[in-house]
Amino acid sequence: MQVYLNGSYVEHTEAKVSVGDRAFVFGDGIYEVIRVVNGRFIMEDEHMDRLDEGLAGLKIDLSKEQRDQVADIGRKLVSINGLENGQAKVYIQVTRGSAWPRTHTFPDSPVEPTVYLAAEPFTPHKKLHEEGVDAITVSDVRWSRCNLKTVNLLPNTLAKQQARDAGVNSAVMIRDGVITESPNANIFGVKDGVLRTYPASNYILSGITRQAVIAIAKEENIEVNLQPIGEHELYELDELFFTGTTTDIQPINRVNNRAIGPGKPGPVVQRIQTIYNAKLAGG
Amino acid sequence: MQVYLNGSYVEHTEAKVSVGDRAFVFGDGIYEVIRVVNGRFIMEDEHMDRLDEGLAGLKIDLSKEQRDQVADIGRKLVSINGLENGQAKVYIQVTRGSAWPRTHTFPDSPVEPTVYLAAEPFTPHKKLHEEGVDAITVSDVRWSRCNLKTVNLLPNTLAKQQARDAGVNSAVMIRDGVITESPNANIFGVKDGVLRTYPASNYILSGITRQAVIAIAKEENIEVNLQPIGEHELYELDELFFTGTTTDIQPINRVNNRAIGPGKPGPVVQRIQTIYNAKLAGG
Repeated sequence: MQVYLNGSYVEHTEAKVSVGDRAFVFGDGIYEVIRVVNGRFIMEDEHMDRLDEGLAGLKIDLSKEQRDQVADIGRKLVSINGLENGQAKVYIQVTRGSAWPRTHTFPDSPVEPTVYLAAEPFTPHKKLHEEGVDAITVSDVRWSRCNLKTVNLLPNTLAKQQARDAGVNSAVMIRDGVITESPNANIFGVKDGVLRTYPASNYILSGITRQAVIAIAKEENIEVNLQPIGEHELYELDELFFTGTTTDIQPINRVNNRAIGPGKPGPVVQRIQTIYNAKLAGG
Repeated sequence: MQVYLNGSYVEHTEAKVSVGDRAFVFGDGIYEVIRVVNGRFIMEDEHMDRLDEGLAGLKIDLSKEQRDQVADIGRKLVSINGLENGQAKVYIQVTRGSAWPRTHTFPDSPVEPTVYLAAEPFTPHKKLHEEGVDAITVSDVRWSRCNLKTVNLLPNTLAKQQARDAGVNSAVMIRDGVITESPNANIFGVKDGVLRTYPASNYILSGITRQAVIAIAKEENIEVNLQPIGEHELYELDELFFTGTTTDIQPINRVNNRAIGPGKPGPVVQRIQTIYNAKLAGG
């Protein structure tokens, strides 16, 4: 696969950054993942807006010129990697750049941000969407600026790995007694026909797909209650599902080996899946 | 400067890692900084033990052979960079390695950890140690595994930069109403001759220098109370100081422009500085 790094298109095996890159030594960068369907970037504006929020949150000075080229670089990668037809995803990462010597404070002299993009083919998790997945609960040990989509992702990777080690698909993270999100997706519950999900705040990454699901619910006259789901309410829910750019809408059948509702995908998540899939397909 | 990267000694400008390195995309790595005085690695065993704890905490499989070479690689870097005389510091970073494609879970096939070391000359902050520094308070927004010395350091860099933007040396971080530490050092208070500092737990990185100061206090019959300092107690303290591998023992004169005690280095911190400096010098 060809990737883009600081002005060049190169094989991914040849794409290298300095050990002084602040993402390597501090995790000092942000990222986005955009879904691509037949060359069409899904909810591109929303992803680019969030990229801007991340750059502002971290005070990374990416020039307007460079920022405005990002999506087109992604499109070029889709093209040169032969991914115009079918499903793909584009990964975008912007770091504060490379500085020497390493100092916690931002570099004394301005440095160019590192801009890295990759495009890959993508296979939707169709079977998981149809059949649902299992999960475990883990403690949400992340920092309290989860609204920024940064590459400080160690707690996420550790939680995701913990789920894999437990033989399940993913984790339901609990902070202060309530469900926040998964290591790489948002979480919705359904109780008596009402959707429940953690409100947009500094304790979750408010996903683009999460926002799309809330919009679909409004169109469909499904009530959305932005009251966090308490851990004690988990097994009383009728349905539970993950949402995310590559997760799509993924029903959760069991948490900690206990069934949610009847332990299989329910009517509300299936209805939302149908509408969301049509939107992805361009409907 | 020559650095070490995965088996090679190269100029730091030539040392490059893959964009697939998990430290670059996830902050999935740990690090240490060891102080070197006339070629002598200060508290080497303590730093190497903490490296082991970090590797275990992140489940990074560094082979025993590689692990046992790390300090000697550091010594070789000190030598080839001409740093055997005077002060230097050695930076050690171990990441989970490079994997493609990017997945939150650990790589499906085992990958070699990335091992990176750098050595640099170091000038102790003598003036700051003698005169003291100013600080601001900031909210401690870090995750709740601060006991692991990982490169997920974004909250630390942002807090340190916030202090610089405020025109002061560093920040005093507050979590749940008590002082935890600074972005890159531990914090001690003194009240009525008794030392106070946050207990070793998952909410602080228990520094090697912190441990050395506690040991000095015991030798000197200075009582140490591991009860966190409440934010409300801050301005009632007689003294306040930072401790760290490159910070050494740094008195804090003012926080948020309010004097701590008489607003200058006090007798307890000066006594500890004298003993600590003698230990650094090999006494």
